[in-house]
Amino acid sequence: MNYSIIRYILCRVLEFQALFLALPCLTALCYREKEGWAYVVVLIACLLFGGLGKMKKPKSTVFYAREGFVVVSLSWIVLSLTGALPLFLSGDFPSYTDALFETISGLTTTGASVLDSVEVLAKCNLFWRSFTHWIGGMGVLVLILAILPLAGGYNMHLMRAESPGPTVGKLVPRVRHTARILYAMYIFMTITQIILLLITGMTPFEAMTLSFGTAGTGGFGILNDSIGSYSIASQAVITIFMILFGINFNVYYLFWTKKPLQAIMCEELRYYLGIILGAIVLITINIYGGFTSILEAFHHAAFQVASIITTTGYSTIDFNQWSEFAKFVLVLLMFVGACAGSTGGGIKVSRIVIMLKLVKNELSHLIHPKRVRQIHFEKHVVTKDVLRSISVFFIAYAVIYGFSVLLISLNELDFTTNFTAVAATLNNIGPGLEQVGPTSNFSIYSQPAKYVLMFDMLAGRLELFPLLLLFTPATWKRR
Amino acid sequence: MNYSIIRYILCRVLEFQALFLALPCLTALCYREKEGWAYVVVLIACLLFGGLGKMKKPKSTVFYAREGFVVVSLSWIVLSLTGALPLFLSGDFPSYTDALFETISGLTTTGASVLDSVEVLAKCNLFWRSFTHWIGGMGVLVLILAILPLAGGYNMHLMRAESPGPTVGKLVPRVRHTARILYAMYIFMTITQIILLLITGMTPFEAMTLSFGTAGTGGFGILNDSIGSYSIASQAVITIFMILFGINFNVYYLFWTKKPLQAIMCEELRYYLGIILGAIVLITINIYGGFTSILEAFHHAAFQVASIITTTGYSTIDFNQWSEFAKFVLVLLMFVGACAGSTGGGIKVSRIVIMLKLVKNELSHLIHPKRVRQIHFEKHVVTKDVLRSISVFFIAYAVIYGFSVLLISLNELDFTTNFTAVAATLNNIGPGLEQVGPTSNFSIYSQPAKYVLMFDMLAGRLELFPLLLLFTPATWKRR
Repeated sequence: MNYSIIRYILCRVLEFQALFLALPCLTALCYREKEGWAYVVVLIACLLFGGLGKMKKPKSTVFYAREGFVVVSLSWIVLSLTGALPLFLSGDFPSYTDALFETISGLTTTGASVLDSVEVLAKCNLFWRSFTHWIGGMGVLVLILAILPLAGGYNMHLMRAESPGPTVGKLVPRVRHTARILYAMYIFMTITQIILLLITGMTPFEAMTLSFGTAGTGGFGILNDSIGSYSIASQAVITIFMILFGINFNVYYLFWTKKPLQAIMCEELRYYLGIILGAIVLITINIYGGFTSILEAFHHAAFQVASIITTTGYSTIDFNQWSEFAKFVLVLLMFVGACAGSTGGGIKVSRIVIMLKLVKNELSHLIHPKRVRQIHFEKHVVTKDVLRSISVFFIAYAVIYGFSVLLISLNELDFTTNFTAVAATLNNIGPGLEQVGPTSNFSIYSQPAKYVLMFDMLAGRLELFPLLLLFTPATWKRR
Repeated sequence: MNYSIIRYILCRVLEFQALFLALPCLTALCYREKEGWAYVVVLIACLLFGGLGKMKKPKSTVFYAREGFVVVSLSWIVLSLTGALPLFLSGDFPSYTDALFETISGLTTTGASVLDSVEVLAKCNLFWRSFTHWIGGMGVLVLILAILPLAGGYNMHLMRAESPGPTVGKLVPRVRHTARILYAMYIFMTITQIILLLITGMTPFEAMTLSFGTAGTGGFGILNDSIGSYSIASQAVITIFMILFGINFNVYYLFWTKKPLQAIMCEELRYYLGIILGAIVLITINIYGGFTSILEAFHHAAFQVASIITTTGYSTIDFNQWSEFAKFVLVLLMFVGACAGSTGGGIKVSRIVIMLKLVKNELSHLIHPKRVRQIHFEKHVVTKDVLRSISVFFIAYAVIYGFSVLLISLNELDFTTNFTAVAATLNNIGPGLEQVGPTSNFSIYSQPAKYVLMFDMLAGRLELFPLLLLFTPATWKRR
């Protein structure tokens, strides 16, 4: 393990954190909030430690995959620990653990809160919560890669460790350019959404925070009823943008480079849209008796389906009151998740599709044992390495899932609450069902249980293995 | 697909079914029950159809793996359909669907009932229910292989399709001898348990039926409180024998052939016993406040742990009243299941262990990408084919699980009930939690939902793929 380069990159991350913290400082200034001083203090501390720590250049630039995983995991932990400080210091959170939970929930784009009311928060805190979604959605290391001229061959390792999905595609040969293109598209889409939300009647503050939450597929709202009290038009805009941010950004790059046909032919995209459509139809049929018109049922079904499959977690309605069938459709979507290479979480549509193809392939194999059959996805043969890593991902996912529910069961909440609390955190969604449903929050869990759920949020965002490696002794051995 | 050989074997299965039905006929004779006529009628019908159907010898003896899977699946369906007839005709069941549910539950060694009271059943029906457990435990095709001189190379295909576990080991080079040895051990252990239960004060009828239920890891009792009202000594005997029947029969064969050291060194056995011990300790600590002594808590914890991990499903106590933590330990055990090559169900300890090793291996791979690492189990390298089949099994398992819960959710029962109802049937356990808990039954589900759960029971017992192949069009194509 090359410790000096890890220290160096972590210090750069601290500097970026200082940059991020400048925005809530500005917000506090605009709204003349005294809570702003907390952000100023932490900003200065980050600058100081980051600047001092990076003065000693790394001894060696040796950088392998494991360094990449460790740096990414530690970066996220450092961002969480420092990002929680101003929330705690501002006095709006009862404990540092709660502030940490909220920050991890923000950065990992989960959107699960420990607060009974978010409306009492200072504007700068509300802004920071939502902005962490935006940072976490596309990734901090990806941003650093886009901006800093980091030398050495380690760019790809960082990109791979932070980006979601079974394989990581570079859009262009150079990682740095890929990172820049990704952020350019991300910023463009976010601004478009802000403008549209302004047109539908939101204030600039609302439009910005809610767009950050949509772009990162996060889900922190600034009102206690999430998106429930905004206009139908605003809700519709958010529905569409949630779906858009759940799409693989490669698709947008293809559109951008004028290959729309290739973009539409993307297999994952078609499955993703197909699942969304199917789920909306099933739920609309199931719930429309409770609404004044089928159109209204469709509107809410579409919003909730888009919110859950993209792992955003906004809600326009308390879907915990829906029928068991409609709720279970949402639970299934929690696991499916968004497309690989999007800002969404969950297992990812591409993994699900490839796993289903594996089962189909096994059946063919049993019928014709001698016929060799390969699995194709996006018109390419899926390599054995990718197949193995998908299977192992799924197994590790199930193991973490089981252990997490076991540990939080010690709080003696009911099974549905525990099961969906882990589903909502490990898949970076936000709300679950019953006592962690859309009108409730995670304050009912004890401090130790919250740490389990924080682990799940980070594990879900970083796709398990980077975080698991931190707990593997062999990772820490010097070469 | 060689249809004529499938017809031929199914007719032999019908003849065996006639043989099995002779036993409840005898029971009815002993207890002078008029319900016996139903068994006589079905027995004669089975003999007639079986005898007539097998008169035309199969045109070809071509027999591949797919014929093996199809024959095994169809055999189990034929046994279920005919086995349900006497239950229905005797008038003890309100509908044929309910009788079929009970029979499939018996044959697949699930032990989930649709009856509010079993004590009102005729003795011959009680005997038949329990005896189906015993048949299903070791398998019908295995029994046929042991007795009939079936020629051709298809023995192994049948054995493989019916026996549980990721790999099927022949104890001796000839499949037929392997089948005989398995049944000899099975009969010996069943008789030993019957004798011990007689010594602890049970009547011969109780000792036989409950031993059948233990041997097949089934779980049908003959009293409404399952095993609750028997003596502590009887409960202890059943606890021990449940654990024994959950062990891979290879282990007993090693003991028998005087290789006890090799038997004890069996990796799966040690994990299995370790998990049992760990679960008992965790639950005892968690629940002993509710009992008069820690010994009593240990007794009930041990019974329930043994009952659930071996997928038997007997109970001495209503564990649905336990703490959420203790209940979730049991839920986890539902998925683990017993050892491969035992009469138990579930995912199987060996699959779980190999899957955990896969995750560990992946972590090593990430740290040292160039180092090739193989996975060892039972002192052998696990082949890529076995690894693939285990991963695919797990994926198919999860897919069937999700779809089953979705479909039965249409009945609008709560999530915990639906989730554990599928866990209890797909893993062939019997009771779940809440409305399908140990003091409840499956009558709350509608007829369509019962068919979903019947599918799950069969899929669980035959380890998914044989049953899935029935629904794959390519299976039915002639060569």
